[in-house]
Amino acid sequence: MTFRAPVHDLALALKVVGHPELLAKAFPDLDDATVDAVLAGAAAFADNELAPLNRQGDLRGATYANGAVTAPPGFAAAYNAFAEQGWNSLAADQAHGGQGLSKALELAVFEMVQAANMAFGLCPMLTQAAIEALHRHGTERQKRLVLPKLVSGEWTGAMCLTEPQAGSDLAALASIARPDGKGGYLLSGQKIFITWGDHDAAENIAHLVIARTPDAPPGVKGISLFLTNKFQVKDDGTLGPRNSFRPVSIEHKLGIHGSPTCVMLYEDAEAELVGELGQGLPHMFVMMNAARLHVGVQGVAIAERAFQQALAFSQERKQGRALWDKEGAIWGHPDVRRTLVLSKAKIEAARAICLLTGVLADQTHDPAAKARQELLTPIAKAWSTDVGVEVASAGLQVHGGMGFIEETGAAQHYRDARILPIYEGTNGIQSLDLVGRKVRLDGGAAMRALCADMQVTIQELNANPELAGVGSRLDAGAAALERATEWLLQVSADASLAAATPYLRLAGDVIGGWLLGRQALAGAGSDDPWLRSKATLAQVYASQVLTLACGLAEGLPEALDHLATVDPAALSR
Amino acid sequence: MTFRAPVHDLALALKVVGHPELLAKAFPDLDDATVDAVLAGAAAFADNELAPLNRQGDLRGATYANGAVTAPPGFAAAYNAFAEQGWNSLAADQAHGGQGLSKALELAVFEMVQAANMAFGLCPMLTQAAIEALHRHGTERQKRLVLPKLVSGEWTGAMCLTEPQAGSDLAALASIARPDGKGGYLLSGQKIFITWGDHDAAENIAHLVIARTPDAPPGVKGISLFLTNKFQVKDDGTLGPRNSFRPVSIEHKLGIHGSPTCVMLYEDAEAELVGELGQGLPHMFVMMNAARLHVGVQGVAIAERAFQQALAFSQERKQGRALWDKEGAIWGHPDVRRTLVLSKAKIEAARAICLLTGVLADQTHDPAAKARQELLTPIAKAWSTDVGVEVASAGLQVHGGMGFIEETGAAQHYRDARILPIYEGTNGIQSLDLVGRKVRLDGGAAMRALCADMQVTIQELNANPELAGVGSRLDAGAAALERATEWLLQVSADASLAAATPYLRLAGDVIGGWLLGRQALAGAGSDDPWLRSKATLAQVYASQVLTLACGLAEGLPEALDHLATVDPAALSR
Repeated sequence: MTFRAPVHDLALALKVVGHPELLAKAFPDLDDATVDAVLAGAAAFADNELAPLNRQGDLRGATYANGAVTAPPGFAAAYNAFAEQGWNSLAADQAHGGQGLSKALELAVFEMVQAANMAFGLCPMLTQAAIEALHRHGTERQKRLVLPKLVSGEWTGAMCLTEPQAGSDLAALASIARPDGKGGYLLSGQKIFITWGDHDAAENIAHLVIARTPDAPPGVKGISLFLTNKFQVKDDGTLGPRNSFRPVSIEHKLGIHGSPTCVMLYEDAEAELVGELGQGLPHMFVMMNAARLHVGVQGVAIAERAFQQALAFSQERKQGRALWDKEGAIWGHPDVRRTLVLSKAKIEAARAICLLTGVLADQTHDPAAKARQELLTPIAKAWSTDVGVEVASAGLQVHGGMGFIEETGAAQHYRDARILPIYEGTNGIQSLDLVGRKVRLDGGAAMRALCADMQVTIQELNANPELAGVGSRLDAGAAALERATEWLLQVSADASLAAATPYLRLAGDVIGGWLLGRQALAGAGSDDPWLRSKATLAQVYASQVLTLACGLAEGLPEALDHLATVDPAALSR
Repeated sequence: MTFRAPVHDLALALKVVGHPELLAKAFPDLDDATVDAVLAGAAAFADNELAPLNRQGDLRGATYANGAVTAPPGFAAAYNAFAEQGWNSLAADQAHGGQGLSKALELAVFEMVQAANMAFGLCPMLTQAAIEALHRHGTERQKRLVLPKLVSGEWTGAMCLTEPQAGSDLAALASIARPDGKGGYLLSGQKIFITWGDHDAAENIAHLVIARTPDAPPGVKGISLFLTNKFQVKDDGTLGPRNSFRPVSIEHKLGIHGSPTCVMLYEDAEAELVGELGQGLPHMFVMMNAARLHVGVQGVAIAERAFQQALAFSQERKQGRALWDKEGAIWGHPDVRRTLVLSKAKIEAARAICLLTGVLADQTHDPAAKARQELLTPIAKAWSTDVGVEVASAGLQVHGGMGFIEETGAAQHYRDARILPIYEGTNGIQSLDLVGRKVRLDGGAAMRALCADMQVTIQELNANPELAGVGSRLDAGAAALERATEWLLQVSADASLAAATPYLRLAGDVIGGWLLGRQALAGAGSDDPWLRSKATLAQVYASQVLTLACGLAEGLPEALDHLATVDPAALSR
């Protein structure tokens, strides 16, 4: 099964759904022709260079031997081509060798990369996070000697947070960085789940590691961020000796076999402070927020890939008499078609949420945009990755028995997708972030503003005879989201906790419906079947997803009461 | 992680939810003590003999070499112990060596077997289906020489339907059985996806195969059912020469690695007709209906196993400050607890649906019971297996990053569970069966009768102050199901097709809520925390699942209109 990057859908989402006026404001020189050219170039690379390596990456996987990791066959060459063609440096600052383009455009490019080969895409994705952290908080030396190498892609980045006892709770971490008496630090400890923590595809790897300093206070305030490089970096930028850290094993995982997940051991590794002492977690959140949005895009990507494969299969596979296909292609069976069209609608809703968040991230001087970006980030991450798992599963199902056979390839997407709701903050953590920091902390201002903006779209939909049904369902959905938001603002922090996951789902369902509505309006009245199909996607989504919003809002307030006193022994007697 | 069979939950479901008066009617001698003793014995076998083999079965898998399949290490010995202890013969007719017990009790036993080791459980599950077919349609010779060997478990059975071009559409099959001139047939063709089609755990394997006869009409009416044995059976019951069929490969699958999925080649294999010529599909449906209910039970089973593992992990794993646990066990985090309690509620709803269907299957002379059994069978299969996938995924999620590591074991459940919505008729096929044959064909009588019975429970719930909230939500859910049913009965067959899957989900959601309500009533006022927890499960389910019923019913009627004209090219431009 070949993959074909959805350049037209991406361009439409960027230009129409993602607030074109905002994109134009941040990047006045970014015309449609440039956007199209960048997307087309990236699509060619994704389709031709990365997608063909995906299955081999799964079968062969990254390997570990003698303290070193080897990337799967073909990955190192593809990575070097990726960097040489400039795909790593699209949105980085021109001062550090980047191309200074829109983050939203970069996200669109990365969606194609992740769809073509998610295990591969993780490597530059984490480099992007490291670029973001050094750009914001790096020292002058780090910006001069390390950042340009990460921007060019000659070196890659790794994000080193988790320890066995410290996953979602980073306050529990134990790695320690002792001052070396020369202005630097000696870093010791063990980190787990370090994606692309070691490999042979680039000449150096910059590790951004959180650790404690010896005299630091306990808890999160004692945590600082450090940079330590696989090969030390001399003052002239050339590489010095190997630093004293190494991978000690890689994990045997359910999916993304092509991406090495390392256990890293640091033994007095030479390290430098990044940013301020004790500010490790806030600095790391800079990386994590960028990474969270990228993970949301991975959800869209794996869903798109799984969908394309299932759609192609549904047109080839013939079984029985199909209502809508004389030759019996299963695409002609209403139940199969419903599955596929609903999958596509959810993909486009998730893509729109992610790209809108990216466009907002481009508005660096607009506080309202920043507030909305922060509001949408946990939704982009969690809702889109849930869609990734759901659509990968639906795609497998469309294949029938063949879907369960590994050779078919549908199962790989189902396995690969499953990491997405977990890493970069589980989806449960995202929902707590949404409810606590993004809704309750600002008194609901950002969410209320978003719901108010939906009214504009609702009125436009209502005025269009073909789309009025979508308008009324979106109206009911937005009202449910508003009710749930007001409830959240009135209750105690404790009461909000148990409602967090269904609240995030409700928010994603409604916001996704809003953006599909905008897209449908852009296609209304067009002669182009592709543009017209955007109305169908919004209609199917409205009837199958937005109809559930009222019930979701109704059920929210009760969760806590019933749960508080459950005895676990009573559940497994 | 050890597994502990949920004997108390199973006994409660059998005695309370599954209409105890019906069970007593069919089996007057089956007292509670017998039920408890059978469940306890099976639980010990499942926990101690089968569960420990589950991981090895996944890692090592069944293997194929030189035209023969070898079961994973330990499976053959476990199978022999299973048969010797009588677990294979619980519900079979005493005339054929069975114990003549309730099918519902047998299902409860099989749930424990499937939870302990689903790859193993598939083998006796298919033997049960073969027993059912020969019991109903076998010749006198087949009943004398083959059936007792299947009942005792000395031989196993295989169900041979699918061919590469004939999956959901069995009318397309091409295997052929030519009369041999001596009253028998010579069977030739290739069958795929034959579960336990060959192995070394029993001395003989009875294949029930559908095929055409040379002069048969095209389509389903030309299909007959045949029995062909791996080793031919002489008139004195001893084994003759090897028959001319063999496995040519086994599949490399996403999960259930311990269960060999064979490609079988039949080359003029000696075969006997089962039942009547041209009645192959109706006869096969006897096997398939029994198997479909068993697959629903597999959904409950894999969910129970995944849930137990996640619940245990949630009590051991400590992260951060937990609202409900001083030491930070993640079970004390409301979002995690919500996930687990909702999982358990769905498991118990699915278990109740399956066991109720089993109890109804025991009422062999009651037409109303038979109609309800037939109505519930596609729901038991599809809804319970969707729960299986969902809960296995939720269980993996509770483990965080560890869930994605294969050593943890949660990923195996996620992989194993994924076959369940596919085999024995995909869940899409189940929904078409429900809508077409089970609801529309009888003018909605069986579904209306079921909804009427719910009113009794609703009134009992409403009369109980603690459970009145469940009663009102169930009332709204039942009304939504009734509305959806009336809509289904009014529209064309075509219009019903696109609504089939959401209708089945709605029906399962509401019927599951009904049975949880019955269970909650049985526990109301009890001093026993386990029995009281049944109220909590019903309350959480009502607030998180039944609240969606109205929206599901509202969205049903629209699916077809929007889907009919979708151009697949517009979805992948």
